[in-house]
Amino acid sequence: MAAMASTGNPQPLYTGKAKSLFPYDDRHFRMVFRDDLTAFDAVKKATMKGKGYYNCQIAATLLPVVEKAGVPTHFVKLLSDTEHLVKKIKIVKLEVLCRNIAAGSVVKNYGFVEGAEFKKPVVMFDLKEDKFHDPLLNEDIAEALGVATTAEFVKMREMTLKVNTALRNYLEPRGLLLPDFKLEYGYDLDNKLILADEISADTCRFWDAKTRRSIDKDVFRFDKGDVLATYKEAYERITGNRAS
Amino acid sequence: MAAMASTGNPQPLYTGKAKSLFPYDDRHFRMVFRDDLTAFDAVKKATMKGKGYYNCQIAATLLPVVEKAGVPTHFVKLLSDTEHLVKKIKIVKLEVLCRNIAAGSVVKNYGFVEGAEFKKPVVMFDLKEDKFHDPLLNEDIAEALGVATTAEFVKMREMTLKVNTALRNYLEPRGLLLPDFKLEYGYDLDNKLILADEISADTCRFWDAKTRRSIDKDVFRFDKGDVLATYKEAYERITGNRAS
Repeated sequence: MAAMASTGNPQPLYTGKAKSLFPYDDRHFRMVFRDDLTAFDAVKKATMKGKGYYNCQIAATLLPVVEKAGVPTHFVKLLSDTEHLVKKIKIVKLEVLCRNIAAGSVVKNYGFVEGAEFKKPVVMFDLKEDKFHDPLLNEDIAEALGVATTAEFVKMREMTLKVNTALRNYLEPRGLLLPDFKLEYGYDLDNKLILADEISADTCRFWDAKTRRSIDKDVFRFDKGDVLATYKEAYERITGNRAS
Repeated sequence: MAAMASTGNPQPLYTGKAKSLFPYDDRHFRMVFRDDLTAFDAVKKATMKGKGYYNCQIAATLLPVVEKAGVPTHFVKLLSDTEHLVKKIKIVKLEVLCRNIAAGSVVKNYGFVEGAEFKKPVVMFDLKEDKFHDPLLNEDIAEALGVATTAEFVKMREMTLKVNTALRNYLEPRGLLLPDFKLEYGYDLDNKLILADEISADTCRFWDAKTRRSIDKDVFRFDKGDVLATYKEAYERITGNRAS
């Protein structure tokens, strides 16, 4: 990794499972990608030096891919090896899942065959609430909770499908399938709905197109092999850079 | 109960948790309301003589209420104390929940306050599949499973809201609130989408409007009191008949 200075660490505004958010200026946050790994509602935890760097760089590559495709994001630029400068947003308390190939919870919850391709992308909305284990919800429940309106569901769905197309187009020539991914949205200071959070090996399933081998957090979740080497491979294949 | 003869019991076409379905003629099934009670995915079970009768009569009262309000149902007539003559249908593998007041799983799953009234009815669709514990799903998942299309979701939603209004209008003067209920739909032989199953103290929450006391299966689920007396009370208040 290049030796870029970190910008210091005051109290975070928010500490997630693998990232922390710090104040920066009137219109921006500083988002730090930590080396932490968690799975299954943080029941399984680990720390791996370098993981934060790889994910930070993957997200710094893929967020602009999506932006270019017409979906505005909170990403402004890299501040250091492990830090993004991002727009200040008010997060929408939803996780938006988009699925192209059945894997993970839909296999367990509905009996889809692992690896089966969906005829068209499947979009799902989970409440972002660890206390309730991020339950699936629909427009009516979201509205009753005051989390989002039906119109916002429609808009996030449209944006998510655009993100899906942009990512698949980017990953395909790199020999990667995109079984599914998770997005988060927020409102910027101009009250515009934009993509927030990250797009990384923590939030996407990446499969090698030939072997269908996981190159993502599933290697950690299910003890499938060398976790750090997996994040490094995802980094190299997605950014086109060689890890030092 | 009146002494009406049962029409005999050959092999059922389908045995549910509290009802059995038998052949009748080319266009009809015979639906038998048994005395069985189950809760929590049939982990809790009981049999209570008379329960099937009360539920059968409640459903024979409420299904015509709904039909009158413009929602076609599979109910034709009573065949005996515990049997409905119903139209042959091909069931849609969904359970449609409609909620007016927060109770049960939405309290547990999303943190709504028990008894809180929703500003507008909340409609949810569960996959009817015990093996997967009837998980919530959305249009995309239903379509991927081949269970229903988005257009069918829209139609079932509309019909469910009509049912809700009809039931509330009927129950209100009887001093009953309707916190929530579950419906099932099917296609009849003319390929028309109609309401199937039952509307009873097993599939609805009925609360006394003054005391908010449960007059439904929650009394069995949560050991709230005399279960058979509860079904009897629901029967008397809903049908207007005195139980013998």
